[in-house]
Amino acid sequence: ATNKLLLLPGDGIGPEIMTEVKKIIGWFNARGTVSFETEDDLVGGAAYDAHGQAVSDATMERALAADAVIFGAVGGPKWDGVAYEVRPEAGLLRLRKDLELFANLRPAICYPALADASSLKREVIEGLDILILRELTGGVYFGEPKEIIDLGNGQKRGIDTQVYDTYEIERISRMAFELARTRSNKVTSMEKRNVMKSGVLWNEVVTATHKQGYEDVQLEHMLADAGGMQLVRWPKQFDVIVTDNLFGDMLSDVAAMLTGSLGMLPSASLGAPDGKTGKRKALYEPVHGSAPDIAGTGAANPIAMIASFGMALRYSFGLVAEADMLDKAIANALGKGLRTRDIAAKGEATVSTAGMGDAIVAELDAL
Amino acid sequence: ATNKLLLLPGDGIGPEIMTEVKKIIGWFNARGTVSFETEDDLVGGAAYDAHGQAVSDATMERALAADAVIFGAVGGPKWDGVAYEVRPEAGLLRLRKDLELFANLRPAICYPALADASSLKREVIEGLDILILRELTGGVYFGEPKEIIDLGNGQKRGIDTQVYDTYEIERISRMAFELARTRSNKVTSMEKRNVMKSGVLWNEVVTATHKQGYEDVQLEHMLADAGGMQLVRWPKQFDVIVTDNLFGDMLSDVAAMLTGSLGMLPSASLGAPDGKTGKRKALYEPVHGSAPDIAGTGAANPIAMIASFGMALRYSFGLVAEADMLDKAIANALGKGLRTRDIAAKGEATVSTAGMGDAIVAELDAL
Ligand SMILES: CC(C)[C@H](C(=O)O)[C@@H](O)C(=O)O
Ligand SMILES: CC(C)[C@H](C(=O)O)[C@@H](O)C(=O)O
Repeated sequence: ATNKLLLLPGDGIGPEIMTEVKKIIGWFNARGTVSFETEDDLVGGAAYDAHGQAVSDATMERALAADAVIFGAVGGPKWDGVAYEVRPEAGLLRLRKDLELFANLRPAICYPALADASSLKREVIEGLDILILRELTGGVYFGEPKEIIDLGNGQKRGIDTQVYDTYEIERISRMAFELARTRSNKVTSMEKRNVMKSGVLWNEVVTATHKQGYEDVQLEHMLADAGGMQLVRWPKQFDVIVTDNLFGDMLSDVAAMLTGSLGMLPSASLGAPDGKTGKRKALYEPVHGSAPDIAGTGAANPIAMIASFGMALRYSFGLVAEADMLDKAIANALGKGLRTRDIAAKGEATVSTAGMGDAIVAELDAL
Repeated sequence: ATNKLLLLPGDGIGPEIMTEVKKIIGWFNARGTVSFETEDDLVGGAAYDAHGQAVSDATMERALAADAVIFGAVGGPKWDGVAYEVRPEAGLLRLRKDLELFANLRPAICYPALADASSLKREVIEGLDILILRELTGGVYFGEPKEIIDLGNGQKRGIDTQVYDTYEIERISRMAFELARTRSNKVTSMEKRNVMKSGVLWNEVVTATHKQGYEDVQLEHMLADAGGMQLVRWPKQFDVIVTDNLFGDMLSDVAAMLTGSLGMLPSASLGAPDGKTGKRKALYEPVHGSAPDIAGTGAANPIAMIASFGMALRYSFGLVAEADMLDKAIANALGKGLRTRDIAAKGEATVSTAGMGDAIVAELDAL
């Protein structure tokens, strides 16, 4: 069976790092045990420049038809002035919403070879392996009303609406408990129930879902602000953190930066399993952004993007052995001291984006 | 003239640390150059237990009549089950709203004596001195609708509303620029304009206000998630960070934890100057919470609470020399190696809450 991938490199460093993923896909295709068919398309500022929309309807159709979407990054100062509805980020948000990718898995892992790249003390982050599970299709990202009203007299009013329904909280809670079972069996749910009604409901539904057959998993609740603090103080206390769209955005970025390896961290955004085929819609993207400041300089680290494809192997195609191989190849390249600029210690030699991609291919060959 | 203080110790460690502030107030009164009159009252869970409300109307009247409110902390597991409207936090939120304390100043300072208490590397936080200016009476904390609706079929909907008007963003921006001028002259504004309409308006109004006579101050804009990352990566890049109520809640907690000295950090919540008297309504509180787990054990660090009174001396009473004296006394006590449990290195001797308060009084005597 051929697996269909839609590649959406996007803006900034997106195209450069996608080039490296293509080498990896090519390697697996050449090996012959699996087969991927890829299609390239535009998203974000690149799509806006081409046809005035951050993602076109045609691209959305391809995304819906694909087995997995591999997504680079969107945005940059070039599009700062475009209308809100067609800004680069709108493309990503539409993909998440229309594919119903409600679950965003963001592992924060500290690679042993890179422990010193963190701004945190070695003992605080060495061996860190936590998973932020972020709700991705609800909350303040999509709630209505979302508008700016002109009140007259030079006054405007900006409004966003945070909305969560029981079923949305329930399905992400289930996934949290199920993921925890494959890890250290602990879930920490974060909200601001002391200030937000959606937080009250969040807390209530997570607690109720826990009682529906997940009581073997340890569950704790933490206020999101305290959670941010605890991430900085002692992140190893966590296993799976489940939280809403906006808190997840903030907390996963803080968690990513703890590791000092932002250029290394992949993410997976998953939908519900299809009733008939059991397949999930899915999009894989690096946690980092489009980094317009280094685009085109060959300084970008392609590992987060390549590891995102690794998550696709694991979660979309059940190719666990292949995913493990790829993770191993990445670890081996790092183990040999290969460093892109972002993860190099002062004075250490660096390789380019392409150099890192080639090295990982070579490590695959050597396995 | 006698200065009127309303003391609201609240819950958990609140009463213990307030006891230490009273020693400091007593010291200044005994010295004779200034005179404070204090009144004690209930807030939070303590107020709920006494009369079923997190802050009573009578207490609110006293707060409105006081020159400054000195606030401990509220909340604890004891009140987890009480109705949302009368939960301990509602007392604090009503005080902020009814006193119109729109500006929350949260300094994050790394005390040299404590640089090693941080989970971050010494070079990352040594000498850190940033100020988070958080909007405190708007946003998702107070916007309507804020409710849980029963949709039937076992489904509920939790709703919160983020609302910002031009004037609210303008006045907090002005304060940010004015504060920056007394510091390193740089303001970083944080929002999520790529996802939130209130963020778009926030960005627009901060930019416009900057052009109204504040162009001598350096202004930069950062997305709030990137801001959280940058706080962890290299916090010294910031001077004043201005942000909304919810992002400010998260980011100031992260910033506080960076310093490793959460038990040391004070905050001031200020209103607009009165048209006639020029006086601002004000509330001063430590950044840390009620820490119910250590309440009554004598382990609480009273410094954040005492330093909050120091901010009152400075911002409400213009007693700059006295505020400097108090800061000096705190620094001297720390310089002599006095440590409460939270800031002690492994194996270091510790003093109790009262021991630290007494030591600071002794240092005041010695100045
Ligand atoms: C690009 C932006 C819309 C996006 C978000 O806020 O979700 C990004 O920050 C992320 O975390 O994936
Ligand atoms: C106690 C709570 C309501 C409060 C808030 O969320 O504002 C606290 O976290 C704070 O930061 O002062």
